[in-house]
Amino acid sequence: MQRQKVAVNGERLKNTLERFADYGRTPNNGVTRLALSEEDRLARDYFCSCCRDLGMDIKIDDLGCIYATLEGLEDKPPVVIGSHMDSVKKGGRFDGILGVVAGLELVRTLVEHNIKPKVPITIVNFTNEEGARFEPSMMASGILSGKFQKDVMMKKTDVDGVTFEQALQSCGYEGDTSNRLTEASAFVELHIEQGPILEREAKSIGVVECVLGMVCYEIEVTGESDHAGTTPMDMRKDALFATNNLIAEARHELGRLDSNLVYTMGRMNVLPNIHTVIPNKVIFSLEARHTDEDVIASVEKIIQSLPDQAELLEGCEVRVTKLWGRDTVWFDKTVCDEVEESVRSLGYSYKRMVSGAGHDAQFLATYIPTAMIFIPSVNGKSHCEEEFTPWEECEKGVNVLLETVIKLAQK
Amino acid sequence: MQRQKVAVNGERLKNTLERFADYGRTPNNGVTRLALSEEDRLARDYFCSCCRDLGMDIKIDDLGCIYATLEGLEDKPPVVIGSHMDSVKKGGRFDGILGVVAGLELVRTLVEHNIKPKVPITIVNFTNEEGARFEPSMMASGILSGKFQKDVMMKKTDVDGVTFEQALQSCGYEGDTSNRLTEASAFVELHIEQGPILEREAKSIGVVECVLGMVCYEIEVTGESDHAGTTPMDMRKDALFATNNLIAEARHELGRLDSNLVYTMGRMNVLPNIHTVIPNKVIFSLEARHTDEDVIASVEKIIQSLPDQAELLEGCEVRVTKLWGRDTVWFDKTVCDEVEESVRSLGYSYKRMVSGAGHDAQFLATYIPTAMIFIPSVNGKSHCEEEFTPWEECEKGVNVLLETVIKLAQK
Repeated sequence: MQRQKVAVNGERLKNTLERFADYGRTPNNGVTRLALSEEDRLARDYFCSCCRDLGMDIKIDDLGCIYATLEGLEDKPPVVIGSHMDSVKKGGRFDGILGVVAGLELVRTLVEHNIKPKVPITIVNFTNEEGARFEPSMMASGILSGKFQKDVMMKKTDVDGVTFEQALQSCGYEGDTSNRLTEASAFVELHIEQGPILEREAKSIGVVECVLGMVCYEIEVTGESDHAGTTPMDMRKDALFATNNLIAEARHELGRLDSNLVYTMGRMNVLPNIHTVIPNKVIFSLEARHTDEDVIASVEKIIQSLPDQAELLEGCEVRVTKLWGRDTVWFDKTVCDEVEESVRSLGYSYKRMVSGAGHDAQFLATYIPTAMIFIPSVNGKSHCEEEFTPWEECEKGVNVLLETVIKLAQK
Repeated sequence: MQRQKVAVNGERLKNTLERFADYGRTPNNGVTRLALSEEDRLARDYFCSCCRDLGMDIKIDDLGCIYATLEGLEDKPPVVIGSHMDSVKKGGRFDGILGVVAGLELVRTLVEHNIKPKVPITIVNFTNEEGARFEPSMMASGILSGKFQKDVMMKKTDVDGVTFEQALQSCGYEGDTSNRLTEASAFVELHIEQGPILEREAKSIGVVECVLGMVCYEIEVTGESDHAGTTPMDMRKDALFATNNLIAEARHELGRLDSNLVYTMGRMNVLPNIHTVIPNKVIFSLEARHTDEDVIASVEKIIQSLPDQAELLEGCEVRVTKLWGRDTVWFDKTVCDEVEESVRSLGYSYKRMVSGAGHDAQFLATYIPTAMIFIPSVNGKSHCEEEFTPWEECEKGVNVLLETVIKLAQK
């Protein structure tokens, strides 16, 4: 493969992204393309036809993942790029699909310039990354990496009771287990940041070093549901008042740990939830993310100590349950450095950063040298119809991917 | 009418209360007897048959209220006693029905002792006090007192879409407007306290001086729903964090006003209520009750100032809406004093107190000299299956009612 600086076609990239957005476009210019839905099937069909037009070979595995491969000069493990085509309900036009369309634009550019890679280049579309139709998210990559069990996942149902297996069959994208991604020289995923950092710091590219470790707890506060009018304040066991104290305490303690720590109480249910009745139960989630496992350990210590803070409990009882946790997944240093090198050679502004969100890449990283490239999200928004990344930033992102892949495929 | 000390029959009172609890008894020994339901109809039928056995005259008004009258020696406005027979879902065996059964036991005692009252004595059963099937609560007494409009109330529907009017007709208890309670020499309602005060202070009787004034607000906090993993803490607009600050602030300020003030945030909904998404909206209720309108005015000032506490809002916006309010309803001093006098003559422990809960009596008080008698609620519980008042306390309550009515009917 000849080493020469080529650039992708920004206009074609934009048009292709907009073309894919037609498969599930919402009235407010977002996208609803749930995994294995009719919209997803049409997007898959179109993707495959584009790849065939480029002379690529298409394989489907037993999880519905699509692998479109451009032949290399040598029969070696491919450099894999890609992401996912499914979206959340009323999601955006960039999350996931950008990484797939980037692959298409990259191969189109190579073909156009008659550049033949040394090793094969494979564009992958992972099934059901969002988990918006079938939980959990990153289902296919989770099975590929051995994190999830296929037989359990196949029985997962959507809100209508359709199983993942049934949806896979009726979508027409159930392929063969032998086609699974088992080996690759590298995997690089281009994705929108889904956060505000690149935009705030006016950087075009994020060289992603890791996906943050996290813990998620459920905290249940139990009091007594007495009459709001007849129970003096000093005789109450108000679960919401206790919760209020506990959240203030947790915020105070967590706020002292590390400025990069993020923590969220996203879910809270108050019972019986009647304005004339003192709440007897509040159940809320507390999740926290950080690269450093020592910081996460400190977070867990703070959460686990909440039931002992008698002076905050207003006579209520508190039960703390760890729902799940994951360690920080570090990407491959060599591939990350290749990405950084590519950005520098292109002269784009960038920063090395972390991913607070989960991605298929974190599972792939367990058995393939992996890295991710981020581009800015306007106002940090994603998973919503206003999700947007300026077209020129998309173009830069794909150029970085192209440079990186050309170098990786040369090795 | 001869003045002589007579006492009610505690055993008969208990048996009658338990007999009524059969109309809708739940597996956990509570009662579900929604207004105008089949259980309510059977209870009404049984009540009427008991009254007829005592030679009482029965009238039904256009709202389904039952008036059973024991003739007096003179044709004067009656002394009215009673309460309501409907319950909440999975309510108790005492709330409401106690006041009706007390009337029955009172008349049985008079008849048994051949005591003829000077003025008629009427036992009333008000329709739909709880508002558990058709909102609002205290519907019939609200219409009788001119607080609610009949034509609006008739169109109120239950969860199955049945209107109050339809339920009234199919229950067979739609009577005549001319039978409405328009005039009485006094109204006295015996009721369980539904709070813990009498029990805590080891008093048998509460002489109720008023129903507390109250205000109810809805507070809506609006932030931004960003990704929990990718949004740094200093770039968030977390509606739950802001709410937590506001509740702490409100509690701090309200706690300084008056030790008799009660306030409750009973209802709270967090949106979108997903553990990985920063809450962009929290809507919660804040209701407060106190006898003194100046204290209530201070409460309102505190609530209304919340949107101005910029340092607490975490970048969110706050909207405060007054849902409704009512002034304290003071009962008739003469009737209250008669009740107190009766308790003292019987040698029971008692206290003058307020009602934090609403009752039909508060509407009756607007046009009839009215008072209420409370008896203790074990652990302050009501509107639940464990609602209980010791039988001997019930008996004392009815004896106080009897003494009071004998004196009132003598005037």
